Amino acid sequence: MSEANAIAVARILATEPVLVGSERASSALGLESGHLGHAGPPFERTDDIPPVVLNALAGAAVHEGWAGDLDGARRLILDGQITLHANHDLGTVSPMAGVVRPGQLLMRIENRAGSEVVHATLAEAGRRALRFGCYDEAIAGQLDYLDRVIGPSIVKALPAEGLPVLPLIAQGVALGDDTHQRNVGAMYAFVRQLPGLASEVSQWLLGNPQHFLNYAMAAAKLSLDRASGVEGSSIVTAISRNGVQCGVRIAGAGQRWFTHAATQPDGYFFPPHSARDGQADLGDSAIVEAYGLGGTIAHAAPELARQMLQDWPAVQATGQRMRAFFIDTHPLIAPALAGAEGVGAGLDARRVVEPVRIHTGIAHRNGTTGWVGIGVALAPLECFQKALEAL
Amino acid sequence: MSEANAIAVARILATEPVLVGSERASSALGLESGHLGHAGPPFERTDDIPPVVLNALAGAAVHEGWAGDLDGARRLILDGQITLHANHDLGTVSPMAGVVRPGQLLMRIENRAGSEVVHATLAEAGRRALRFGCYDEAIAGQLDYLDRVIGPSIVKALPAEGLPVLPLIAQGVALGDDTHQRNVGAMYAFVRQLPGLASEVSQWLLGNPQHFLNYAMAAAKLSLDRASGVEGSSIVTAISRNGVQCGVRIAGAGQRWFTHAATQPDGYFFPPHSARDGQADLGDSAIVEAYGLGGTIAHAAPELARQMLQDWPAVQATGQRMRAFFIDTHPLIAPALAGAEGVGAGLDARRVVEPVRIHTGIAHRNGTTGWVGIGVALAPLECFQKALEAL
Repeated sequence: MSEANAIAVARILATEPVLVGSERASSALGLESGHLGHAGPPFERTDDIPPVVLNALAGAAVHEGWAGDLDGARRLILDGQITLHANHDLGTVSPMAGVVRPGQLLMRIENRAGSEVVHATLAEAGRRALRFGCYDEAIAGQLDYLDRVIGPSIVKALPAEGLPVLPLIAQGVALGDDTHQRNVGAMYAFVRQLPGLASEVSQWLLGNPQHFLNYAMAAAKLSLDRASGVEGSSIVTAISRNGVQCGVRIAGAGQRWFTHAATQPDGYFFPPHSARDGQADLGDSAIVEAYGLGGTIAHAAPELARQMLQDWPAVQATGQRMRAFFIDTHPLIAPALAGAEGVGAGLDARRVVEPVRIHTGIAHRNGTTGWVGIGVALAPLECFQKALEAL
Repeated sequence: MSEANAIAVARILATEPVLVGSERASSALGLESGHLGHAGPPFERTDDIPPVVLNALAGAAVHEGWAGDLDGARRLILDGQITLHANHDLGTVSPMAGVVRPGQLLMRIENRAGSEVVHATLAEAGRRALRFGCYDEAIAGQLDYLDRVIGPSIVKALPAEGLPVLPLIAQGVALGDDTHQRNVGAMYAFVRQLPGLASEVSQWLLGNPQHFLNYAMAAAKLSLDRASGVEGSSIVTAISRNGVQCGVRIAGAGQRWFTHAATQPDGYFFPPHSARDGQADLGDSAIVEAYGLGGTIAHAAPELARQMLQDWPAVQATGQRMRAFFIDTHPLIAPALAGAEGVGAGLDARRVVEPVRIHTGIAHRNGTTGWVGIGVALAPLECFQKALEAL
């Protein structure tokens, strides 16, 4: 382990993400009217924006009242009249299209061992949701429900000292979560820590375990960002996809993105959908793979592997190969199925010798149908190679 | 599969155990004053009763007001002035010493697909508990808390149609439970189905996941008893231990017990305890192994294997050998780690070619210290051989 990488991984592991409260995106991120965040690296041209993301941006613009309908909103976006930002640059991360608008409530995750803050978005329930490109009155109602009920209820139920996120991830992983496409265990652990929740809210949360993913993503970004800027370090600090490009950041290259064409996910498609319906790999959520979760602990999540129609021995072998790309061992997240090697900490671009496995939700590429599957995508090897060349 | 065994396993799998309410043991089991139930096959002589069971019986007698102190209660028991019954003959099952007294509240589990009923006991929290031979004022308070708060609160929160138990077991097993020494997942699923619970009660339950075991045991007995009496069938309908003898019942031999000396459990002992402190194998709980859970799905419970300090590849191999002793596949309980073979249904004494693995709690043999470990015991091969000779 190089000295630079040792420093980077020590900073990552010294981070203690704690959920402490909520704040509107406008003040939390300094996101002004006419500005929206989205997942992945920035788009070079608005024409590149795939329908799933364009529709999610348009839905957000309508929801904010900047346009009267989706057609009008799409025109504003394509004409550059709405300013777009990569979420990572705003201090947040969000799954799939990952659109963040000024008026929405974000959840504040602080580093208990420092002064850093990252904000998590509140994930909607169901297969038709803004993050999959859908927007209509029912979805508008869901977005309002998150802002008015789910977020404030969770904040009200938080312990006075906040809720540490890593122990929830650790408990979830011991219950078979990969903490990307399976968050059943962590959601149980989360709700258990919030006994004051009204049963309406706790039942909603337990019925939507993927809602936990966003907290895990924010915790991962908070931790990995601590390594950003460590000179000479080849530790990966982000993997993110905008539906066209997959981007990677490494510690020694700061905020730069190293991109390559996003891959096509495959796995389990909800009938009647199939792989040809799938949107190319999308979302900030691969931050969890950079942290050592998701596809990089595939070998600890057998129920998910089966759900994704994957051969378990092959999944185990792949997960173990992914584990070898990390330079250290996570001290807290340690499922038995990870064996003596434990869960990786510090994904070293120098060790990445094949595409990194990502467990991902899959949106319909048409940008109107919504969520159509879960499966496996890949962070291309080229991203890591380009990043190393920049060191 | 013989016709007799096909009938037996069909009856087992046709059973739909549903938790529907509660009732005092006196009326539920017809258990009169001066009578107590205990785990395992009957004792031949009161002198055979090990300290753990004797002290639990004595504690129950004091709690019922039949004796002023434990010494007096022990004398009543040893003199035969308190009549003892095997729980299985009363229509209940209970872990470890498993003492059942007339005044305690039992939980009623009915067969939705028939008219049969089995009652579950309410499991105490903590390492000092009556089922491990301990009794004092704090434990008396716990027993009252079960009867006054836990049982009635659960009943009040039950859905009108009752709560089916097998789906909870299935969900728990998918979260890594063996449903014997690990019930974390099933308890989460259980509490989720009872949204009306006061947070005091739900937090107590989530803090004591082993409390779920008793419902699983009753569900297993309800199902397996349906096979009892099927002429010529070699399907095991019970495995149970009284701390001296391990007893097995098979369908074709009805209520007869086929016994052999109970084995000494080994595994993880809570410091400073060690294997030499362990009480010989004890409790009705091995009913779950006869059903296809516990040690017979050891290969689906990696976290438990690690907790018991067991080598995972060896555990997997053993669990898979146990699976081969069953003649059919459970249609509902199907963790991914069980693979294409699934979870066994119908433990066939004819197929049992080595001792059956049991995951067990371990009491201190002194009968006063309480719970000192969790580990593996064995149902001796001789039990199954004797049973077959009686067919």
